[in-house]
Amino acid sequence: MEQDTIAAISTPLGEGAIAIVRLSGDEALAIANHVFSNKDLTQVDSHTIQYGTLVDPKTDEKVEEVMASVMKAPKTFTREDIVEINCHGGMVSVNRVLQLVLRYGARLAEPGEFTKRAFLNGRIDLSQAEAVMDLIRSKTDRAMSLALKQMDGRLSQLIRDLRQQLIETVAHVEVNIDYPEYDDVEEMTNELLKERARNVKSEVHTLLRTAKQGKILREGIGTAIIGKPNVGKSSLMNILAHDDKAIVTEVPGTTRDVIEEYVNVRGVPLRLIDTAGIRETEDIVEKIGVERSRQALQDADLILLVLNGNEPLTEEDRALFEAAKDLDSIAIVNKTDLDQQINMDEVREVAQGSPVITTSLIEEQGIDELEQAIADTFFDGEVDQGDLTYVSNVRHIQLLEQANEALDDALESLEMGMPLDLVQIDITRTWELLGEIIGEDVSESLIDQLFSQFCLGK
Amino acid sequence: MEQDTIAAISTPLGEGAIAIVRLSGDEALAIANHVFSNKDLTQVDSHTIQYGTLVDPKTDEKVEEVMASVMKAPKTFTREDIVEINCHGGMVSVNRVLQLVLRYGARLAEPGEFTKRAFLNGRIDLSQAEAVMDLIRSKTDRAMSLALKQMDGRLSQLIRDLRQQLIETVAHVEVNIDYPEYDDVEEMTNELLKERARNVKSEVHTLLRTAKQGKILREGIGTAIIGKPNVGKSSLMNILAHDDKAIVTEVPGTTRDVIEEYVNVRGVPLRLIDTAGIRETEDIVEKIGVERSRQALQDADLILLVLNGNEPLTEEDRALFEAAKDLDSIAIVNKTDLDQQINMDEVREVAQGSPVITTSLIEEQGIDELEQAIADTFFDGEVDQGDLTYVSNVRHIQLLEQANEALDDALESLEMGMPLDLVQIDITRTWELLGEIIGEDVSESLIDQLFSQFCLGK
Repeated sequence: MEQDTIAAISTPLGEGAIAIVRLSGDEALAIANHVFSNKDLTQVDSHTIQYGTLVDPKTDEKVEEVMASVMKAPKTFTREDIVEINCHGGMVSVNRVLQLVLRYGARLAEPGEFTKRAFLNGRIDLSQAEAVMDLIRSKTDRAMSLALKQMDGRLSQLIRDLRQQLIETVAHVEVNIDYPEYDDVEEMTNELLKERARNVKSEVHTLLRTAKQGKILREGIGTAIIGKPNVGKSSLMNILAHDDKAIVTEVPGTTRDVIEEYVNVRGVPLRLIDTAGIRETEDIVEKIGVERSRQALQDADLILLVLNGNEPLTEEDRALFEAAKDLDSIAIVNKTDLDQQINMDEVREVAQGSPVITTSLIEEQGIDELEQAIADTFFDGEVDQGDLTYVSNVRHIQLLEQANEALDDALESLEMGMPLDLVQIDITRTWELLGEIIGEDVSESLIDQLFSQFCLGK
Repeated sequence: MEQDTIAAISTPLGEGAIAIVRLSGDEALAIANHVFSNKDLTQVDSHTIQYGTLVDPKTDEKVEEVMASVMKAPKTFTREDIVEINCHGGMVSVNRVLQLVLRYGARLAEPGEFTKRAFLNGRIDLSQAEAVMDLIRSKTDRAMSLALKQMDGRLSQLIRDLRQQLIETVAHVEVNIDYPEYDDVEEMTNELLKERARNVKSEVHTLLRTAKQGKILREGIGTAIIGKPNVGKSSLMNILAHDDKAIVTEVPGTTRDVIEEYVNVRGVPLRLIDTAGIRETEDIVEKIGVERSRQALQDADLILLVLNGNEPLTEEDRALFEAAKDLDSIAIVNKTDLDQQINMDEVREVAQGSPVITTSLIEEQGIDELEQAIADTFFDGEVDQGDLTYVSNVRHIQLLEQANEALDDALESLEMGMPLDLVQIDITRTWELLGEIIGEDVSESLIDQLFSQFCLGK
């Protein structure tokens, strides 16, 4: 396929030692060579690194001192010729290099266009392409492992196997429709169809069951720590975040100074919500309270509701329980190091079956129990690290749910003794839906839309 | 020189397609190879790119899919073995790769340590190393050109030439001191010394003369646009920034949402101060005024004081002139499209010799004159683009000033007929001071301090 040559800055923007401008396409070598002195890049071996100077051929002005990595098709990310120009990592430097190659024939790549080409040129399928994006965006170690597995093609292989089963079934039906004279064939086909459909449905079901956990592993459990002033919210935050086992990733927000903290509790990634808010407001005790906590609840998957064991349950506490009542929550009765004034029966009553843990955060007592309770709430205590293939992509989950419904339709038709060619329609639809996950027979507009969510330069 | 192996993330932090973890040192190949599957990196050719998977050898866990660029000493940036691991550009991904190589023998590099090694291993001198940092930090095209020239060794060569002249002079003095029997040698030496010292002083002087312009080209002219509400400040800002010729670089601040805008006016880079402030406050007219403008003056090299020609000069205007009186300023009488109520003689009087330009910003009249006035103020109208070597580094300027003084001392001693060995002390001191610019005979603590200002991974 003849493709024009695209270029983009492929490293994050900002100050750093190195930045990369990447070119891909039929003219990648020629364009890079046109602005590169010292060597003829079109003649060098593939997968070699060339030191040289970029010079604007029109003005003879020296633009940058660079290393050019030359990778020739087809053994490249896009299966096209690729040149990666490593230049100094400043804003001006990398922009100048990009402008130079754009001036001499490259076109600015759209977001995700490199990965899109890898897909269009058959190097990776759609779910693998989506995994590339997930990998870059991953905020937790676990999320990255999931993405890596998906990139490896694990999910793709599973989907391919299911489709293979379905297509074989369809072939059987075709035979039956074409040769209706054999009576027992119809009976046998009906049975076979049922078996196959149930089998595929069971596997789709297993995949869907991983979806919630997959989402959690990918995005982290949005965790809100709420409670009255001075009950120990920021102590809890610090204990969770500064645990030796914890990985804290500070992600600067793009629009405001929002810092998201991710902590790893027994393999479960927690995304702590409004941590800055809590940290800041514990200093100005009078300012926080129920109202602020309520806001934090909006994004939360898990509520850690902290109570002061040193005083009786208050109306404010009850209001917080009320606000959290539709969410997964864990009540933490803190300050066991002080005289216990709280009535635990009362706490259990308002907790309505949610776990209740007693802690002395100041003496770091009860932390193990709390962490276990968190793991239990989402993974029945054990986070599967092994070979389970998790589905975490919203698009994939929707397609699997639709496939599940189509299979239900097929099974229902079979039970009702409907004609096989009607059943075939549902089976074929399932086959198509699963195909969309890996990008078979997907529409161009869907592809465009998916890749436009990528970052520039990927 | 035996060196331990250092590693760091060399691309800016953030989300992007690609990130690089760089290793340098004797064990760079061995460490990278230890965690790299697919190929034996210690056996591959230098300057080649290898595709492979990073695997933690202890846990057999797959860590990332990467491209490893192998560059063997001595033809590398540090003159040591270098491996650059190109991985996916996410925060987690690049951190995992870094952690992996640190776990298997690399040490986290200090800021600037790669460049420091390039210097210590003799690949570049100190002024070139400083240029690397300037290049990365450069905010304007012109700043980058200056840094590139300095990296090329232009300044270094000039300094080396001057030192050569001085050392030859010192040799002459030595000869004279050792063989004092020849009377006329003393006379000749005295004359020669004067000539040489004057010559070097003249060149040092020329370099120092470029210092102010060098600083401007490097950092941009801090430009504050001040004036009463509603005189046209934001129009002026927009005209300067959105001019076709202008290059606007938006630099996100690290601590707050400060955006610095750099615009290019006839080759002169202006750094517009508090642009957000002006933009925002023209909407809430009552909030701005003299107080806000006064704050903007603190960082300014140039004041653009905007007046409303449609009304007489007010006390507020006079207060602004008063506040700006010690700085380079240009008065802009705006709104020539409306009835002129302002008394121009009065304006010229309070401007005290600073240029006064009349404009109609709304009709884009008078912009050329304004741009010319800006260029005139700093570069006598013509910005030298050519072969002039600019000194822009504060450390270099200080050393040149000290060298200048030492030369003055030498010349004074010569005039007074002081003994030549006293003159020799001043000449030697000049030679040493100039040497410090390129890093000859500089102390270890100075080197440490200089490189610690670099960014990580460089």
